[in-house]
Amino acid sequence: MARRTDAAAARPLGEFGRIARYFKPLAAGFAGARGLADDAAVFGVPDGRELVVTVDAMVAGVHFLPGDAAEDVAAKLLRVNLSDLAAMGAEPYAYTLVTALPKDLPEEWLAGFARGLGEDQRRYGIALAGGDSVSTAGPVTLSVTAMGLVPAGQALPRGGGRPGDAVFVTGSIGDAALGLQVAFGTLDVADAEARAHLLGRLRRPEPRTGVGPRLRGVAAACLDVSDGLVADLAHLAEESGCAAVLEAGRVPLSAAARAVVDDDPARLATALTGGDDYELLFSAPVEHRDAVAAVAAEAGVAITEIGRLEAGEAGRVTVLDGAGAPLDLPARGWTHF
Amino acid sequence: MARRTDAAAARPLGEFGRIARYFKPLAAGFAGARGLADDAAVFGVPDGRELVVTVDAMVAGVHFLPGDAAEDVAAKLLRVNLSDLAAMGAEPYAYTLVTALPKDLPEEWLAGFARGLGEDQRRYGIALAGGDSVSTAGPVTLSVTAMGLVPAGQALPRGGGRPGDAVFVTGSIGDAALGLQVAFGTLDVADAEARAHLLGRLRRPEPRTGVGPRLRGVAAACLDVSDGLVADLAHLAEESGCAAVLEAGRVPLSAAARAVVDDDPARLATALTGGDDYELLFSAPVEHRDAVAAVAAEAGVAITEIGRLEAGEAGRVTVLDGAGAPLDLPARGWTHF
Repeated sequence: MARRTDAAAARPLGEFGRIARYFKPLAAGFAGARGLADDAAVFGVPDGRELVVTVDAMVAGVHFLPGDAAEDVAAKLLRVNLSDLAAMGAEPYAYTLVTALPKDLPEEWLAGFARGLGEDQRRYGIALAGGDSVSTAGPVTLSVTAMGLVPAGQALPRGGGRPGDAVFVTGSIGDAALGLQVAFGTLDVADAEARAHLLGRLRRPEPRTGVGPRLRGVAAACLDVSDGLVADLAHLAEESGCAAVLEAGRVPLSAAARAVVDDDPARLATALTGGDDYELLFSAPVEHRDAVAAVAAEAGVAITEIGRLEAGEAGRVTVLDGAGAPLDLPARGWTHF
Repeated sequence: MARRTDAAAARPLGEFGRIARYFKPLAAGFAGARGLADDAAVFGVPDGRELVVTVDAMVAGVHFLPGDAAEDVAAKLLRVNLSDLAAMGAEPYAYTLVTALPKDLPEEWLAGFARGLGEDQRRYGIALAGGDSVSTAGPVTLSVTAMGLVPAGQALPRGGGRPGDAVFVTGSIGDAALGLQVAFGTLDVADAEARAHLLGRLRRPEPRTGVGPRLRGVAAACLDVSDGLVADLAHLAEESGCAAVLEAGRVPLSAAARAVVDDDPARLATALTGGDDYELLFSAPVEHRDAVAAVAAEAGVAITEIGRLEAGEAGRVTVLDGAGAPLDLPARGWTHF
């Protein structure tokens, strides 16, 4: 971690002070972080393991709303990265953090942010290894480089699918996209519990860290759903050199999403294309169906078969409605709100 | 690498297009990057090696000037991270990149930035492993997480110095700080070559990657000079539980810096405290002087003895002038311009 002296020692809490107060405690449990006192972290990778490295950045106003709670922002930042590790079949190991913060950011924001990171570090078993903290005249800009471990050669690829594979997804789809409409006030959900569920899934996605590593040797291709179910299935199919069929009627919806879609069936498109789900989408040979069911039981996470890969134009996705007729969706993916 | 579908396919070059055109070629030589097509990079760490991980971020208007050439910004971003690896005694291995860019950033900027990264990747033998590319309403914000390799247990610490150690520095000190004054127009340097030298050292620091790994087993404590020579010596001394003496008259200055300081001796303080030098500052037992000289010869980089560690208040630095009298400096370090 590069550190810089704050010439204005009279300022309440300079970079050194912020690092000491908020970030050093997050690195305390990880010897390789060297107490954030060195120029870099140093740690080993166990024999027979490979390192899996992923990066995700979030910008206020683009990836989260400026009014979102700092704890939620911290949780989402870590979780989208943990979701990428899970999609690779990797176990969480360590992460580095970059914060670019406006000088007038209230210190309570930083305190909440660090608290959120600390809670999720414990929850998911990942340690802060190092980072950099700089100031910006722009919006809060955050990034995490997350490192995981996987037995050598066993990382799950996007492009390992074959025609005939069944396609599965964890959890439920569409909650975050509908939750975003709730947050923006464009979707009115009267039921308080349903409303809280959709918003909660938007703000605190649940990375499937218990599922991903169990899919090693079971799944043929895997990724996490961030762009939208249809777009991400297209990515998986394209990298696998296959076409794909998605049976919309089999896509798992939460009770809250189901109620909203039943009210207005046009909202199914939002669920299928809205993104930010952070569920695992994977293909597996049909003879692995029992193994997939066993993974679901062990991890305590629902896994639903929703389609198949087939020979055809690489990356083409056909979405079928409940009656088996092709469904035309208005958009395949989304850009940032 | 998380990727997101750009709904506005009509836009000239979305995130996918930018990644394909500018970043995929940078990852082409590194199998672990998986062509940036997966959720994460996957690579091994050779037996007996440890991973050294460092992070540095740069924000336009804070760490570089908005008008700086994109190639120079790329070079500086990589080099400040390579300097951290060198300070740990590590060899460069791979890096991840986060770019947060304004939507109206000219594409030539990105092209120049990628060109600068490519040139320095080849120069220093480091590969792009993955990254994320997002948009921002704020200034260009960049960060690199650089990974290096070091034989297990041999990383150079900041805190390994002992009283009696000699203190050494590579290259020359003060060029970047004086170059910044040239860039700002507050220092007038008539000689074109001297001017170019100072500006070049500001914009393209030379990470001492040839020196750092050779200091394993030779240096006791090491860091790179980013905050300023005096402040960074204080860091090294503090982590080592020692006081330090710096002999200002022995600090190596380039011919350009020497001329500027001779014109106005008050500028010596700028050189000693200005920072952004990215030279290696280290301590070694006095019986290692010959080994240090051998490292300098092998690496082809000047290394100069400039002081010593001694028993005393941890982190206290006494700066002596040429006559051996204590020198009072107006500032020990700097914050960002």
